[in-house]
Amino acid sequence: MNKQTLIKTHTRIKPFIHNTPVLTSELLNEAAGCNLYFKCENFQKMGAFKMRGATNAILSLSEEERQRGVVTHSSGNFAQAVSLAAQNLGIKAYIVMPENAPQVKKNAVRTYGGDIIECESTLKAREETANKIKAEKGASFLHPSNQDEVIYGNSTAAIELLEEQLNLDFILAPVGGGGLLAGTALATHLFSNNCKTIGAEPMAVDDAYRSLVSGQIETNKTTLTIADGLRTNLGNRNFPIIKQHVEKIIRVEENEIINAMQLIWERMKIIIEPSSAVPLAAVLKHKEEFKNKNVGIILSGGNVDVTKLPF
Amino acid sequence: MNKQTLIKTHTRIKPFIHNTPVLTSELLNEAAGCNLYFKCENFQKMGAFKMRGATNAILSLSEEERQRGVVTHSSGNFAQAVSLAAQNLGIKAYIVMPENAPQVKKNAVRTYGGDIIECESTLKAREETANKIKAEKGASFLHPSNQDEVIYGNSTAAIELLEEQLNLDFILAPVGGGGLLAGTALATHLFSNNCKTIGAEPMAVDDAYRSLVSGQIETNKTTLTIADGLRTNLGNRNFPIIKQHVEKIIRVEENEIINAMQLIWERMKIIIEPSSAVPLAAVLKHKEEFKNKNVGIILSGGNVDVTKLPF
Repeated sequence: MNKQTLIKTHTRIKPFIHNTPVLTSELLNEAAGCNLYFKCENFQKMGAFKMRGATNAILSLSEEERQRGVVTHSSGNFAQAVSLAAQNLGIKAYIVMPENAPQVKKNAVRTYGGDIIECESTLKAREETANKIKAEKGASFLHPSNQDEVIYGNSTAAIELLEEQLNLDFILAPVGGGGLLAGTALATHLFSNNCKTIGAEPMAVDDAYRSLVSGQIETNKTTLTIADGLRTNLGNRNFPIIKQHVEKIIRVEENEIINAMQLIWERMKIIIEPSSAVPLAAVLKHKEEFKNKNVGIILSGGNVDVTKLPF
Repeated sequence: MNKQTLIKTHTRIKPFIHNTPVLTSELLNEAAGCNLYFKCENFQKMGAFKMRGATNAILSLSEEERQRGVVTHSSGNFAQAVSLAAQNLGIKAYIVMPENAPQVKKNAVRTYGGDIIECESTLKAREETANKIKAEKGASFLHPSNQDEVIYGNSTAAIELLEEQLNLDFILAPVGGGGLLAGTALATHLFSNNCKTIGAEPMAVDDAYRSLVSGQIETNKTTLTIADGLRTNLGNRNFPIIKQHVEKIIRVEENEIINAMQLIWERMKIIIEPSSAVPLAAVLKHKEEFKNKNVGIILSGGNVDVTKLPF
């Protein structure tokens, strides 16, 4: 994998994604004491960066593989992304979803033509159900975060951010399954001048933080965070990249996530999901470290049930 | 007043305002059956188009007048706009506000350095209090909607929209006091190729609709609409412009406003206040009329208390 791989990836997926805007806010810069550049993947097609990885993964399949469709399991955004990316390319998408996934996310998957198969809300149940469909239909399995094509696709958000703001000192991305953080770290390593990648993670599901400390993939015992996109664990494809190219991971509390989310809603007038607020919460928690720096933040998505807000 | 007046106005205020983005949404285009172009004044400085008119009104004062400050009465957004515009130019702003105005709006006025004077929530009490300050301080009174400089300033939102999308068939703006609708109609008349301006108004406060029917300024008996920016009546400066250049006014019900607001939040991932949702509600109510047309919509602002939503 080198810079050329990511450039090719970007060229390939461009017709199917938005080059989302980079927004700034004087009020938030004052609050944080640094210059913040928000890459707005909440404005991405289907409302999250996952569209990038899903599109790239499907475009990497052979014509024969495409004919048999794709299958994935996801708590939400990747499900929508695979559904829409598959629809764009005229192929079938089987989506394994936990039965307790938010209704707004199930509806969106249906809107994008995905075929939902419900299962219990455990990783084991999801994997078993997906494997069954893979066997029955011959569909290609797409992993939400632990697959090279998905990681490379995700890297394009940071590539675009760096195209617009080359002189960033830091780029922060939230870390859940690790697919966005790994992609961001790769892009930052290959496309920036000395910019550092930092992960931001809820304290309640700090598997990535603990994994960097121990040097091996650690898992979460609970999923008790409002940042529903960040409840999963790292994988063997993204962890080595994170270990090599991520400077560190900052952990934040639930109330800090909610406060940062409300701040972005009120000051920037944009809708982000809780997972997207985690990097700003990290910056606000460690102001001294970021003082007067140029800080890029990947706002990962905006798919939140607006009838059920934490504030 | 001619095209040159508005061009000069625009040039004068440009350093103090954002040229806000024009956003589109494939999902909303499908829902509405036409091509929608949203001029995002919710991203304007202080969160609403009012920044344009307030800035222009203050820039129109003499140096001597500026020394004595400005005074206005406003239920919210114009108060913030005058406060920030005055702060930008280093002058004093006295803001008469109804005591029941949302706390979030009072806080914003204070953030922007405005000096709040509270009064009862009636137009009479507001006007009397403002007159008292005008007499005591020698401050210049700025009207939120019924003053030429304010109307001309407001027109620049539509000018920018037309700069980006010349081939619009319609531009819709909400109508409350009439300052935005009059400015939009002037700009559309002078800068477009045959584009028509349509007003959108809550049924509960349909004074503008009734005024166009009767040919004279009618008033509202109640202020019972969620669109808190649209509760006021037209004035003698803006009504003649509206009568001459506005094609018609479409009225919508409260539930239609709330539905349109939720649609924009969920589909576009941006925060707008209820008043901003009224034009989309009008388009969705009269789909046949707008079918396959290019329709501009002024999203007037985004200052809403996110802890108190109607959905």
